[in-house]
Amino acid sequence: MRKITYGCANSLDNDIARPDHTFGWIMSGKEAAEYLRDYWKTIDTILMGRKTYEVTLQMSKGKSNPSAGMKTYVFSRTLKASEDQSVEIVSTDAAGFVRALKSEEGKDIFLMGGGEFAKTLLEENLVDEIVLNIHPILLGRGIPLFLEMNHQIDLELIESRPFKNGCVLVTYRVKNLASKRRPRKKGAR
Amino acid sequence: MRKITYGCANSLDNDIARPDHTFGWIMSGKEAAEYLRDYWKTIDTILMGRKTYEVTLQMSKGKSNPSAGMKTYVFSRTLKASEDQSVEIVSTDAAGFVRALKSEEGKDIFLMGGGEFAKTLLEENLVDEIVLNIHPILLGRGIPLFLEMNHQIDLELIESRPFKNGCVLVTYRVKNLASKRRPRKKGAR
Repeated sequence: MRKITYGCANSLDNDIARPDHTFGWIMSGKEAAEYLRDYWKTIDTILMGRKTYEVTLQMSKGKSNPSAGMKTYVFSRTLKASEDQSVEIVSTDAAGFVRALKSEEGKDIFLMGGGEFAKTLLEENLVDEIVLNIHPILLGRGIPLFLEMNHQIDLELIESRPFKNGCVLVTYRVKNLASKRRPRKKGAR
Repeated sequence: MRKITYGCANSLDNDIARPDHTFGWIMSGKEAAEYLRDYWKTIDTILMGRKTYEVTLQMSKGKSNPSAGMKTYVFSRTLKASEDQSVEIVSTDAAGFVRALKSEEGKDIFLMGGGEFAKTLLEENLVDEIVLNIHPILLGRGIPLFLEMNHQIDLELIESRPFKNGCVLVTYRVKNLASKRRPRKKGAR
């Protein structure tokens, strides 16, 4: 089963961007860059909602897939199909689609961006791991990392790693993933 | 100048209590207890808003000051004076009152609870330090640790300390405290 990691840089007050979707407050640093370089080798697939896709497209200046070499699934009811074959728009049953994707062969999967789409996958118990690069800042207002959810999610701290620049990288495993999933008979769909 | 520390246990999605103000999810642990025992020796004053006071009163079963041995200031426009002389209700100009309190002689000061009152002191740049005991849980919904604020607050990570039970205690110094405060001439009020 492929692992889905929800990861991002956040402020201590849990925003992932300013209200205008800008990220100028995110600190660069050798340690975070090294972590990302290593993590990137473990995945081949990225999932995101429409808003995150539009922001990353703007930042990537004309590229049709902002993450070269990755298969990117964008979950949207309104976007038209991309001409880039590495980008696939998924317009129906996000949870069902992602559940099937997890059971396919492949490397692990990265859930990018926050908001409604991450909430859906968290509520459906499809996220295996949460990795946050907590920044030493209170933005005051912005785009929230977590929205209200329909149930509590228990986590297990795997690692907390302070960086020299004052960020703290925390890694959690989602604990109630297996227990909340319906048991399935061998061979049954 | 006395230091004000805003501290509490929070969920990873930054709630400080469930919607019904309960804390059953907060994990006990030797390390957190030892930290608190040492911290408690450095303070003699506690600040809180009305809601936090009412919740702590309920929990302390009939005591008029939930924190024995501490001077407790409760900021409220509606509460009547307490018969307990160690509890003082402050009904006007919270920021001015706290600013004066900081310049008095005494031990350091603890800001308890979240919400509107903490927001006021953060916006007025009166909080010196933030200490969070981040719990390995997403509550999904609850009472928020941070509300929207009128400006960004830059922090310096002082320490991140993982506990055996999966909590991470993070300590930050507020960076823009001094620079945002109006310079004051020596001897002037």
